[in-house]
Order: sequence, then structure tokens, then C-alpha cells
Amino acid sequence: MCRVSYAGHVITWVGRRPQRADIPRLKPRGESRAARRVDIADLVPEPVTYLAQAAYFQLGVFESLALAIATAPSIHAKENLSTAAGRVLAKHHGLVAEMKRRGNDPAEAMASFARQLDGFRQATLGSDWAELLLWCFLTAGFLDDFFIRLSAGLPSDIGPRAAQILGEDEGTHMIVTELRAAIAMDQGLASRLALWGRRLVGDTLLVARSAIHATGDLASDESRIEPVFTELIAAHTRRMDSLGLTA
Amino acid sequence: MCRVSYAGHVITWVGRRPQRADIPRLKPRGESRAARRVDIADLVPEPVTYLAQAAYFQLGVFESLALAIATAPSIHAKENLSTAAGRVLAKHHGLVAEMKRRGNDPAEAMASFARQLDGFRQATLGSDWAELLLWCFLTAGFLDDFFIRLSAGLPSDIGPRAAQILGEDEGTHMIVTELRAAIAMDQGLASRLALWGRRLVGDTLLVARSAIHATGDLASDESRIEPVFTELIAAHTRRMDSLGLTA
Repeated sequence: MCRVSYAGHVITWVGRRPQRADIPRLKPRGESRAARRVDIADLVPEPVTYLAQAAYFQLGVFESLALAIATAPSIHAKENLSTAAGRVLAKHHGLVAEMKRRGNDPAEAMASFARQLDGFRQATLGSDWAELLLWCFLTAGFLDDFFIRLSAGLPSDIGPRAAQILGEDEGTHMIVTELRAAIAMDQGLASRLALWGRRLVGDTLLVARSAIHATGDLASDESRIEPVFTELIAAHTRRMDSLGLTA
Repeated sequence: MCRVSYAGHVITWVGRRPQRADIPRLKPRGESRAARRVDIADLVPEPVTYLAQAAYFQLGVFESLALAIATAPSIHAKENLSTAAGRVLAKHHGLVAEMKRRGNDPAEAMASFARQLDGFRQATLGSDWAELLLWCFLTAGFLDDFFIRLSAGLPSDIGPRAAQILGEDEGTHMIVTELRAAIAMDQGLASRLALWGRRLVGDTLLVARSAIHATGDLASDESRIEPVFTELIAAHTRRMDSLGLTA
């Protein structure tokens, strides 16, 4: 019943959706990209620091999704988001298991990043359900991409495993489905969420930047970070575009 | 760090714990128990009704645990409860999968029970973290037991599967660990939680009673229900006892 009315709205919305050109790739693929991938890998922190930050962020995404479930406008939305919450929780537990496998105490390791990441969440969760869902979609998408890029610099017994855990994206389409339905039902929402998305990407960039291990050579670090962040922002723009929102 | 100080408190508490006699079994095991098991099985509702109520209740337990994670006093507690939340979410998804397998629309089926179960949760979640955790332990324990007993009356392709899903109890000890730690750290908490547990079992009984399909013969129904509820209350008393609380 809910599904039908939701689907109806989505179909209406798709028809009205403004046509957009594909976002042009900012740089050609190929050797230059491989070179850049090596660059940011040099800035990876210690494995336990990397894992703790990524794991605690996933726990925050889970808490945000749980709040979205608790405040969802329909049981159908609850049900969809509960699937997404299960996937995010599995990412968190996967990263925690990696810490345990290495002999680290996960709670102790994560405690160092709790204040910053809790503060980020509290400042950016938004003022209603749609803004909260956009948070779950955009910040998780951005930081998953970021941590996957950074994982290339980790030892070979951790990096690929962490990238695989973080790359498990099956729950995301449930969030997109709910966001599209919400946008379709509220004419003013798209412009408000477009503004909110710009705010979110700015704050999320700061979180990513603080997770990088500085080498001490600021100019050199910046020249490595900049092209990677340009790519991450392009991916963010594609996420906004998938919702019909102006990035 | 947290773990050590928690464990220290638990050890202290175990030493001070008042000695209790085992709760005596109210009825001897044996044939009379098998007879009673058949009795309540006669009162099972339609499979979709059963599955929807049990699944929506698990979703509510998940939401309560997620709230307990969000308000947990330490990252170690968050981490323990996140494991419990994952298990409860798996129960919910297992029951939802059973509904889908039977061709039911889970969201539609669950909608019929949302108001009552949401009202039950809102009225009984408690006023602080410890009362919330006690809710998660006691109401989930009671209603899991109840739905497992009731499952004996379902068709053979559903009943055993539902009982297996609901019987997966691995996350519960994490909740007990956190409750014991909280009780050990706050001298007045045990007597407050003892009162709260009495309130909870009363309201939970009403939820269980409303999930039973009445046959129309009130006296006959009561005579079947009463011994089962006596057993469920005895199990509740053992749960309270495991926390050192007077039931």
C-alpha cells in the first residue's frame, strides 16, 4: 500500500525531473590517476588509527540511520532503512573485527576520535527526516570513498580487506529510494536539500582532511590531497545528481 | 580501559550480591507440560498475523537498542550493544523474509500492529538508560519466549523456522553485562529497577494476551493461557534474578 503510493510518486517525479548532462570527468583516466592513487596512499595513518576512525564513523552512520528509522514517516520506509542499517552495522563490525585481529582494543582505539566525529554528527544531522537521510547518503558516500582511496597505503594484509568491507554498498539504494520519494512529495524540499548538501560536503571534507596523516611538508601534502579531493567532490556531485539536486 | 573498570565493578558486585535460592519450578516437567504446550498452540493466530506481530516487535526492540547505543555512557557499552542490535535486526529480517516467502507484504501486514506496539514502547521505555536497557532485556525475553511457545501451533513449514529465528539469543548477554555494570555503579539503581521490572512484566503480559487468537470460549481460553503465562512469569523472575533484582 505504502509501496504503491511511494512508487506512484517516484514515477511522477521522474517525469518532471530536469534533464541534466552527465557530469564531465575532471581528469582523464589512466596513468595520471594511478600516480595520484599512490600519492594519497603515502598519507595514510597507522593501521589502528585508520581502522578506528573508519569504524567509529560507520557506528555514527548506523546511529543516524537508526534515528531515521525511529522517525520514519511509514513502516515501509522503516523497513527499507532497516536493511541499510544492517549493512552499515556489518561494515562497523567488520572493521572492529580487523582491529581485534590485530590485537587492538576497538573501544579504546575509537575513543580518540569520538569527540570529533560525535561533534561532526551533532552539527550536521539536519533539522528534519529528509536532511538526516541526506546526511546518511552523502557523508557516508564521501567518507567511504575517501577511506577506500586511503586504504591503498595500508599494509597488504589490511588495506584490501578494509576496502572490501567499506565497498559493500548494497544498502545505499534503499536510502536513495526514500530520499527520492520524500523529494517527490514536497515541492520545496529539493531546493532546501540542495543547500543542505553543499553544507554537508564542506564539513565532510574537513573530517576527511583531519583523518590524513600529515608528512610535515604542507605544500607537498596539499599537492597530493587536492586532486583526490577534486575526484571525491565529483563523486559527491554525481550523488546529488542522482537525487535531481543541484550540487 | 572501560572494560577493566567495568569488570572490576562487576566483580565487586558479584561479591556483594545477596544469595538467592534458585527459583523453584512451579510445575513438574513431563506430560502435563506437553499437554499445556498443545493448549496454547490452539490459540495461535493466522501465520501472517503471527509473523507480522513478532517482526514488528523485533523492530521495536531494535529501535530501543539503537536508542540505548546513541545514549550509552561509554564507547565500550556502545560496542557491546551494537552486537545485540545486529542480532535483533537479524531476527526482524528473518521474520520479514518468512512473510515475503509466503507472498505477504511485510510493511502492510505489520501496519495493523504498529499503533499498539508503538504505544506499548512509548509508555514503557523508561526514564533513563538503565530503564531502557531493562526494557530491552525483559520485554524481548518475555515476548520471544511467548512467540516461541505460540509457534507450536503454526503450520510445520513456518512454526519451527519462526522458533529458530526467535530463539537466537546470542546478543542478550551483552545487555546483561551492561545492566550489571550499571547496577554495580549506582547503589540506588537496583531497587528502582526492581520496581520498573514489575511494571514492565505487567504491560508485557497485556501485549502477549492481545496477540492470542481468542476462540470465543473465554473460560476455556483462560484455562489454557493461565499455566503458560505462569511459566513465562517464572522465566521473567529468573531474568530479574540474573541481575540480582527482586521480581
